Amino acid sequence: MRDLMSLAERPGIITLAGGFPDTESFPREKFDEIERVMAQDYLASLLQYGPTEGLRELREAICRVMAEEGARCDPDSVMVTTGGQQGIDLSIGTFVDPGDTILAEGPTYPGAVPTFTRYRAQVRHVPMDADGLIVDALEEMLDALDAEGVRPKLLYTIPNFQNPAGVTMSRERRVRLVHLAHDRELLLVEDNPYGQVRFEGEALPTLWELDQGAGWVVYLSTFSKILSPGLRVGWVAAPPPVLRKMNLGKQAADLCSSTMSQRFVVEYLRRFDYREHLAHVSGIYRSRRDAMLTALEEEFPAEATWSRPGGGLFLWATLPDFINTRELAARAIERHGVAFVPGGGAFCDGRGNNSMRLNFSGVSESTISEGVHRIGNAIGEMIELQKAFGGGE
Amino acid sequence: MRDLMSLAERPGIITLAGGFPDTESFPREKFDEIERVMAQDYLASLLQYGPTEGLRELREAICRVMAEEGARCDPDSVMVTTGGQQGIDLSIGTFVDPGDTILAEGPTYPGAVPTFTRYRAQVRHVPMDADGLIVDALEEMLDALDAEGVRPKLLYTIPNFQNPAGVTMSRERRVRLVHLAHDRELLLVEDNPYGQVRFEGEALPTLWELDQGAGWVVYLSTFSKILSPGLRVGWVAAPPPVLRKMNLGKQAADLCSSTMSQRFVVEYLRRFDYREHLAHVSGIYRSRRDAMLTALEEEFPAEATWSRPGGGLFLWATLPDFINTRELAARAIERHGVAFVPGGGAFCDGRGNNSMRLNFSGVSESTISEGVHRIGNAIGEMIELQKAFGGGE
Repeated sequence: MRDLMSLAERPGIITLAGGFPDTESFPREKFDEIERVMAQDYLASLLQYGPTEGLRELREAICRVMAEEGARCDPDSVMVTTGGQQGIDLSIGTFVDPGDTILAEGPTYPGAVPTFTRYRAQVRHVPMDADGLIVDALEEMLDALDAEGVRPKLLYTIPNFQNPAGVTMSRERRVRLVHLAHDRELLLVEDNPYGQVRFEGEALPTLWELDQGAGWVVYLSTFSKILSPGLRVGWVAAPPPVLRKMNLGKQAADLCSSTMSQRFVVEYLRRFDYREHLAHVSGIYRSRRDAMLTALEEEFPAEATWSRPGGGLFLWATLPDFINTRELAARAIERHGVAFVPGGGAFCDGRGNNSMRLNFSGVSESTISEGVHRIGNAIGEMIELQKAFGGGE
Repeated sequence: MRDLMSLAERPGIITLAGGFPDTESFPREKFDEIERVMAQDYLASLLQYGPTEGLRELREAICRVMAEEGARCDPDSVMVTTGGQQGIDLSIGTFVDPGDTILAEGPTYPGAVPTFTRYRAQVRHVPMDADGLIVDALEEMLDALDAEGVRPKLLYTIPNFQNPAGVTMSRERRVRLVHLAHDRELLLVEDNPYGQVRFEGEALPTLWELDQGAGWVVYLSTFSKILSPGLRVGWVAAPPPVLRKMNLGKQAADLCSSTMSQRFVVEYLRRFDYREHLAHVSGIYRSRRDAMLTALEEEFPAEATWSRPGGGLFLWATLPDFINTRELAARAIERHGVAFVPGGGAFCDGRGNNSMRLNFSGVSESTISEGVHRIGNAIGEMIELQKAFGGGE
């Protein structure tokens, strides 16, 4: 995916591939104000190593950010990570031995797939529908694995505005999922980078909150989407004994996260209401999502389907079976100057080859329309090729 | 080690445990100047994701920093890492399968030990003397391993001002080591965080340069000691095919390093001569080292020995056999208010129990004298205890 992103940096290429939040609208005067206080009060300390678990003031602020979603937490249950990605890496690294089975939605976050591979996890995908992960299907899968003598180490899930599917797990399923986790002693790794990037509907309870401190949920999130990804500041909330293990992993991985970035987040949250900034960028994303949905109606073939996310950064489109989206992506970049993420990268079992992830947060509405138009042209060419050469019927 | 560091944050405790460079002397007007240009010209981009391999301008600047030590490199052979620690983690993660044997100096960097453990490497230690790693001993060890049918995946080495031993590998041994690596097809992971933190003597050639592009050296370094550790900006130089593999590891680990930190380093290096800052802090460290050597002569028992580093941040002291430095460290922190790193953490095979690592960069000369005085008292108590209760002779 990152390789595609760097291809997509060539001039003239429209990229719907990345997960870039809008950073253009961040106000310079706020940056200047933060920098002033950093220089004046924290210069020596922000240039120094910090504690592995992160600055105490930041962990306290993170608890307040979590409380916005009704997730109660205390600073001793929080560890700062180098972006949300490191939270995934440390979760998998802490719980998974080579060859262990883990569960993840199908499709799952494409950026988690190399992490699963890195720790040699065997991944089984749990299907989703418009209401998110299908808990019945999960239960059947657990039974089947049990019959095989396989005990999955964890379920990695993104309940809100799932990346890449763009769907949200319903309240009823969340409750059932946590009950099931308790019954079956299944650890849930809840990744929630997008929960507050909401355009529509009400916030639903986090799995963390529904667990009520029973210890079956490790919660991951990040400031990447609510403030800035360039800071690389994310976090893990977990029961302290789990956190101690993950802390050892972080010591080995990078000792601590950028103290300068952490201090920036602390001073930003102290001075400004992040929810205002978030409301502003979410408004931008909503318009961009609408532009994308309109363009898809106009440009994609009638057989195509796609999700209609109520938040987040991505939607997931599925094309007729005979269209391989990896081939389509190569054609789209080379001949049409547009990039997206082919769906195969969101599965560990070879599926997803006629699907694609489209990002609507990173570019303007007119660019989105033009980008989808170009993908539509590339699809049209593949359909023509199929008519000319393909199919035995 | 990090746990000790957090203990050592209690008020009144003198810590000679950490590896804290001096950040107090960083000039505020330079920080302000950099922040101004960051706000004016790079605000949206420094808040955004960057490429996994790091900002191009930073990779170019890194090549110039390496050139100061005579190490030629091009930006395509460089990847930015989240501190030097991530360079170690990615090197081990890329080359080591669980159960593989690797080689490291004995003692080795205590912060690398959890990384070795994380990837389940079997570590064999190569002995050192005042001229660094003993290449004859390495050769014998390779022969012995060969006879066992074991092929070590790599040698992790810190040729300059080794952490924790405080010794530097001689020129002759460097030449022999690289020849041996070529002959025996042994990958060298050269960690060089301290090479430019030199108080005495001439710079010696890096293994990277001696390898002359043959591909048997992966080079690691960091801005932690030459600018600031709080930025968490380090780097790897490696042949591009190796770097591509490590790039995949970095995607899984944290996607990219803090763009804000990277931009800060770029703009700092563009405007100021980092060698001036380095000369300034190195002068401070030299005086602190001298204070520590003087205090050791006065306070430590006659049977103790220690290294006399010509640069870097650490020295290594060895006490009489009967003194367990883990016990000593507990006594020193609890009863005498002083922290150091017990030597056992620098070995993977149970050795080092009568040794300790002492840091001389992080606190003032008078604090160093007082700290060594306190450790001396703790040692005195242990010697008294030994006389009263220990020993069967």
